[in-house]
Amino acid sequence: MFFHEPELQYDVTVEEPDPHFAKLLQQAIGGAEGEIRVAMQYMFQAWALPPEYGEFRNLLLETATEELGHIEMLATAVTENLRGAPDELQEETEQAREHAAMAASMTGQTPRHLLSSGQSAMPIDSNGVPFDAGQIVASGNLAADLYANVMAESTGRLLATRLYELTDDPGMREMLSYLIARDTMHQNQWLEALEALDDPVPIPSSFPQEEENQEFNYAFMSTRREPQPDPDAPWTQGDTPDSRGEFSYVPEQPGDGEVVAPEPDPKTYNDPTDDQR
Amino acid sequence: MFFHEPELQYDVTVEEPDPHFAKLLQQAIGGAEGEIRVAMQYMFQAWALPPEYGEFRNLLLETATEELGHIEMLATAVTENLRGAPDELQEETEQAREHAAMAASMTGQTPRHLLSSGQSAMPIDSNGVPFDAGQIVASGNLAADLYANVMAESTGRLLATRLYELTDDPGMREMLSYLIARDTMHQNQWLEALEALDDPVPIPSSFPQEEENQEFNYAFMSTRREPQPDPDAPWTQGDTPDSRGEFSYVPEQPGDGEVVAPEPDPKTYNDPTDDQR
Amino acid sequence: MFFHEPELQYDVTVEEPDPHFAKLLQQAIGGAEGEIRVAMQYMFQAWALPPEYGEFRNLLLETATEELGHIEMLATAVTENLRGAPDELQEETEQAREHAAMAASMTGQTPRHLLSSGQSAMPIDSNGVPFDAGQIVASGNLAADLYANVMAESTGRLLATRLYELTDDPGMREMLSYLIARDTMHQNQWLEALEALDDPVPIPSSFPQEEENQEFNYAFMSTRREPQPDPDAPWTQGDTPDSRGEFSYVPEQPGDGEVVAPEPDPKTYNDPTDDQR
Amino acid sequence: MFFHEPELQYDVTVEEPDPHFAKLLQQAIGGAEGEIRVAMQYMFQAWALPPEYGEFRNLLLETATEELGHIEMLATAVTENLRGAPDELQEETEQAREHAAMAASMTGQTPRHLLSSGQSAMPIDSNGVPFDAGQIVASGNLAADLYANVMAESTGRLLATRLYELTDDPGMREMLSYLIARDTMHQNQWLEALEALDDPVPIPSSFPQEEENQEFNYAFMSTRREPQPDPDAPWTQGDTPDSRGEFSYVPEQPGDGEVVAPEPDPKTYNDPTDDQR
Amino acid sequence: MFFHEPELQYDVTVEEPDPHFAKLLQQAIGGAEGEIRVAMQYMFQAWALPPEYGEFRNLLLETATEELGHIEMLATAVTENLRGAPDELQEETEQAREHAAMAASMTGQTPRHLLSSGQSAMPIDSNGVPFDAGQIVASGNLAADLYANVMAESTGRLLATRLYELTDDPGMREMLSYLIARDTMHQNQWLEALEALDDPVPIPSSFPQEEENQEFNYAFMSTRREPQPDPDAPWTQGDTPDSRGEFSYVPEQPGDGEVVAPEPDPKTYNDPTDDQR
Amino acid sequence: MFFHEPELQYDVTVEEPDPHFAKLLQQAIGGAEGEIRVAMQYMFQAWALPPEYGEFRNLLLETATEELGHIEMLATAVTENLRGAPDELQEETEQAREHAAMAASMTGQTPRHLLSSGQSAMPIDSNGVPFDAGQIVASGNLAADLYANVMAESTGRLLATRLYELTDDPGMREMLSYLIARDTMHQNQWLEALEALDDPVPIPSSFPQEEENQEFNYAFMSTRREPQPDPDAPWTQGDTPDSRGEFSYVPEQPGDGEVVAPEPDPKTYNDPTDDQR
Repeated sequence: MFFHEPELQYDVTVEEPDPHFAKLLQQAIGGAEGEIRVAMQYMFQAWALPPEYGEFRNLLLETATEELGHIEMLATAVTENLRGAPDELQEETEQAREHAAMAASMTGQTPRHLLSSGQSAMPIDSNGVPFDAGQIVASGNLAADLYANVMAESTGRLLATRLYELTDDPGMREMLSYLIARDTMHQNQWLEALEALDDPVPIPSSFPQEEENQEFNYAFMSTRREPQPDPDAPWTQGDTPDSRGEFSYVPEQPGDGEVVAPEPDPKTYNDPTDDQR
Repeated sequence: MFFHEPELQYDVTVEEPDPHFAKLLQQAIGGAEGEIRVAMQYMFQAWALPPEYGEFRNLLLETATEELGHIEMLATAVTENLRGAPDELQEETEQAREHAAMAASMTGQTPRHLLSSGQSAMPIDSNGVPFDAGQIVASGNLAADLYANVMAESTGRLLATRLYELTDDPGMREMLSYLIARDTMHQNQWLEALEALDDPVPIPSSFPQEEENQEFNYAFMSTRREPQPDPDAPWTQGDTPDSRGEFSYVPEQPGDGEVVAPEPDPKTYNDPTDDQR
Repeated sequence: MFFHEPELQYDVTVEEPDPHFAKLLQQAIGGAEGEIRVAMQYMFQAWALPPEYGEFRNLLLETATEELGHIEMLATAVTENLRGAPDELQEETEQAREHAAMAASMTGQTPRHLLSSGQSAMPIDSNGVPFDAGQIVASGNLAADLYANVMAESTGRLLATRLYELTDDPGMREMLSYLIARDTMHQNQWLEALEALDDPVPIPSSFPQEEENQEFNYAFMSTRREPQPDPDAPWTQGDTPDSRGEFSYVPEQPGDGEVVAPEPDPKTYNDPTDDQR
Repeated sequence: MFFHEPELQYDVTVEEPDPHFAKLLQQAIGGAEGEIRVAMQYMFQAWALPPEYGEFRNLLLETATEELGHIEMLATAVTENLRGAPDELQEETEQAREHAAMAASMTGQTPRHLLSSGQSAMPIDSNGVPFDAGQIVASGNLAADLYANVMAESTGRLLATRLYELTDDPGMREMLSYLIARDTMHQNQWLEALEALDDPVPIPSSFPQEEENQEFNYAFMSTRREPQPDPDAPWTQGDTPDSRGEFSYVPEQPGDGEVVAPEPDPKTYNDPTDDQR
Repeated sequence: MFFHEPELQYDVTVEEPDPHFAKLLQQAIGGAEGEIRVAMQYMFQAWALPPEYGEFRNLLLETATEELGHIEMLATAVTENLRGAPDELQEETEQAREHAAMAASMTGQTPRHLLSSGQSAMPIDSNGVPFDAGQIVASGNLAADLYANVMAESTGRLLATRLYELTDDPGMREMLSYLIARDTMHQNQWLEALEALDDPVPIPSSFPQEEENQEFNYAFMSTRREPQPDPDAPWTQGDTPDSRGEFSYVPEQPGDGEVVAPEPDPKTYNDPTDDQR
Repeated sequence: MFFHEPELQYDVTVEEPDPHFAKLLQQAIGGAEGEIRVAMQYMFQAWALPPEYGEFRNLLLETATEELGHIEMLATAVTENLRGAPDELQEETEQAREHAAMAASMTGQTPRHLLSSGQSAMPIDSNGVPFDAGQIVASGNLAADLYANVMAESTGRLLATRLYELTDDPGMREMLSYLIARDTMHQNQWLEALEALDDPVPIPSSFPQEEENQEFNYAFMSTRREPQPDPDAPWTQGDTPDSRGEFSYVPEQPGDGEVVAPEPDPKTYNDPTDDQR
């Protein structure tokens, strides 16, 4: 059950509104690396956990709730960057023939910020592509989910640092500095949560590993055209991170699998020509 | 530059064709956890790496190439499961009034396997949703990418183990046993590659960490309605996995951020009523 | 800023788990008529409102927050319906040759509930199509948004009543009875909010209506092949709901617009044949 | 059954072609607020209506047919804006090193207008995202559908007024003036059609309302962190628009719903670690 | 400009309604091979044609208009198959505990036909995926477009023949027999239109062919691992269909292209570790 | 089974890096006319072919493999155009207040090239829309597939020629000249493969043509409002390309089909008002 207070989780101020930066910020709302994705991802992961994982469930739901507040902060930032700009549209009505120029300027921004949302934030990415819920990872397996979360916070922090470089508005930099800090924490907390699990790798570690093929489960398989010597890389020799095997090197794919495609049912009309019926 | 040989990377045989299992197998081809995703993900990651990461580039491209062979194996398995079944369609033409029953049976399968592809594999998931290229992660930052790869191989192996439980066809189980083994290897190789990088966390570690907010970068922030005592969890106390901080506990979100939404330009016609102009 | 408590907004109990009903319930989570859509829609609408609409902003955000709790209830219901069922999978391992039959049964459900989420809820609709954020309406104009909300709660309540007819599980019916009641309230509150606005129709009513074409703005235009007599329908005669005009009937489209398509630039190579260059 | 005449429904002329404005116009063709959506929406709604709603069926189909003509007008407008511009591409071939500059200019437009369609209209929105058929609403319930249509014409008219402000080409303004007028009519006709239905709210009003929860069906439920006093808003007191209840105020969500997530089947391999099997 | 008459282009009758067949028919409405696609494809192609191609413009628009009528026929067929079935839902209310069984049956159909559309047709394919406007091809080049149309009518006729095999309802077969015939005509008319163009291949034939690489423009390039002898296939020897060259065989890809990926800007934070800054 | 060598299929050099051109090049990677599409299309087509079509299977797979190398070339070209540009970002940090200007410049490019991929290629089109796997055509019928391939190579070559006109970088033009040449070859090889099939039209020619409606299978059907005289076009008179019929002209659609929509089940709550129950 959720609650809301009419205040932002952290200050959001914009000194010099910039609709172009608003477009870039959209990536942090509706992009693959954005906050809608993590908020929903952590929720669905939490709701799948049975009682004995209650501590993790709380961890996930509390963080999801925090992310909802980040969406709100970023939406505010987008709208402030779009609207505060010096009366652009209004001036134009005075000076007729500049409409086209204005349209030209707008097309480099997110046209839908004006056309569809009246200068406010939208659940889209920086290219105007709607948020893609297919990117939400909630596998039912906590270890897999935690790795998905480390990844999400990694690309999320990467995005925030890149946005930080693209503005020198002090307010925007302070907001991003806060969001970067939270991503630092979240990366660390998911890694710590992984450490709290006993030997979860290979994921799922509950699968009886003797049922997997024993010849190729710790072998680096080269796909070069001609067999190459072992590169003596960390992933061709030595103990494996899961502590259950030893890396080896296989210079060729096993191959020799027979190419098969049975005849389709004639009623699918796959036959391209008449005389083959 | 790629090459191809007309043989499968590993044997694919089906003893008792089952179009329902074909539907499930589609998840491993075009699903979020599937092989098209990883093949393309590893390629785009590799192509972004500058020369000093040549060893990683090879690692990524050789694995991508192996995954292309997995798509081929799985596509073969889908087609074999769809086509080998005892002349279903043909019989039906004999016994007119059973068409509807057949249609009924088909609707539980993937209708498009018959309607769109003539009983062959498609680049879709088990629900018939086309492969979603928005799920491909290639961030430019190798550490973030490697975590994405650990995640992809984790959900991929999870999928393969679940498919394994849903068939007892010996050929299908052997194929899946091979694919599960390869996922074991790939999880380990990506983890090993991460270890070969020096302290990449928090990602991106090349961002000057002093520019991030120093109050909230290692604090677990509770979003409970009423402040709760520190749960003494591994993520509220002790050293952080990135060895750069110490976890702490903050029972409340900072809050107090002012809610702001400047007036939109009147020419966006946001005003809902006439008399407010 | 959001908060969360580890309790559900309303009881969710399932007496006889039914994975097929879980599939249908997904429509209420990730479908066009579902709760993710309204939760996000109301948020983005609220965040666009300038200060003088503070009362509406609260109305929108409080309702959005309630909808987040509905997602949580429905996700719980889906997982309960998926997991509580009598040890289906486990039994199967005993009785080998029935795997295919089980797969067959599964394919009629949502395969990804087993393959992708480990028997838990997902942000998808009842066909397995991921939630489509393109359906979120937040236009910046409050009156347009409120009509979008009436529509969303109408199709939402319609969905809930249809789900109600498809189960007789007492727990599920009680949950749906609650959700239907909330939709009744929400439809009424959005309609009441519309009444609180002065003459917002035609939306946007702030556009100077004299700039629109005055010949066709209150005329029903027939597109029948041959001109038909005025059907004397409520929309061809009498006062219009916006109280600004009177309906009339035009038996033919104006027509006569010249068909034009200027020559494309030759460098687009639109010319289909060589000799036309 | 449809017919076509080779003339436009209304004049479309462009005095000063502007490829940037062409990009903006695309929103009115393939966007959420655009004409493809309403044309198809009205058709599918009409085709669902049983015989006793024949008058509404005609209303819907005649309007759908008119909208097809609007797509044609807008497509013509886009192509005219793209092609009539002073020989941009051709000049460039003379002056070599300006290709990049031209590319730069193009990237702010819709690149696919040149790359994919040879300077002609496409079924995409102003960001280049293909028309999303998931936005079409046809619920089977006429009242719900009519509210969807009011909404569609509201956001459609809003879009047209915003486009009107972004051009001062007399031809374009005349075309938009016509389209705005038609949206005025269509909003009014859908509202009038709603009035022709008896008490359709709450939608669906044919559901036996006594089966919905009677405690929360007319109560505004606050989701504030701490209980707040009744705001005495129009939606917390007084008669409801559906004339079936009276608004009340509930300062807290019911809550206390038990958090439940049964154990998943072990064969889903949800257990993150080996030793928990 | 379009017109509509309230009659179907051809009779649509269903003797024994079958909701499963309704699901399959959806592919012909909203699928890749369906009628929405061709209707819109032919329109956008036509609207791009300059005056000298007026005859082709008519051909395209008249056919597009016919296809609109096919959507209407198929939507009618879907609704008839969904609704005519013997009072399924109603009976169920009598016999409580069978709701789940009904849900089970429904999940194999298109759940959204009941949940979202009230037993009527939708703009989706047979898997419930909304029509994908990204599949519409309108390139600006008439020859390319005509090949796209031959392909669309080929996969469309293939779909119709497959549907024909999956029903023995006389009404449905008669309707499909008509649609198959129309696809025969349309394939032929697009091929005839191609013949009416002078030597359009290679498309675009207006590109000065001397600017393309002259070594590899008529050579079949083998990608086998080891060079293979010329297979003496029709595409490795003899005149080419465009009559401008002669096929040859190249046993190896040119190769030797240097692998390059310049250093990214440090401000993108691509560097995975701290010490490399 | 696939193999890879660390060299490009053909040289890729960029003299003057241009991030705007990088954006345009993305269309050739992830667009409808791009290389991901054809690579995957040819693979899935090949894997569906039964043994007697082995020669075609090889043709398809060898070409698919070549296309994989084209993706690699284009990805390299995109990254070179993005990264080689003179230290744009770095300079900016010196000159504070220009960040916004830089953001402005970036928004006209592909923002995600900086935000999401760290200046490297992505599996998206020139508008930033992810590759759409729904565009892949693999119907099971070889003749239909070959027409799909002619179309794909036609729009692909058209795209490449348009890109050629938008750059004068010698390296880019050489690369495009190579790709255009390959598209010339591929168009010709697919046409030649079609010629190698006996009379495949109408596709599927294996359907017993006597079962299609014999009145309308070779008739051009006019959809004009008023019947028009036969235009004496090549598609209204003379032999048909499939040599099985003769074109004729039908000035009117058959029509007279009865409009039917049976009553929906009352439990779908389609009735819009209470009193109609």
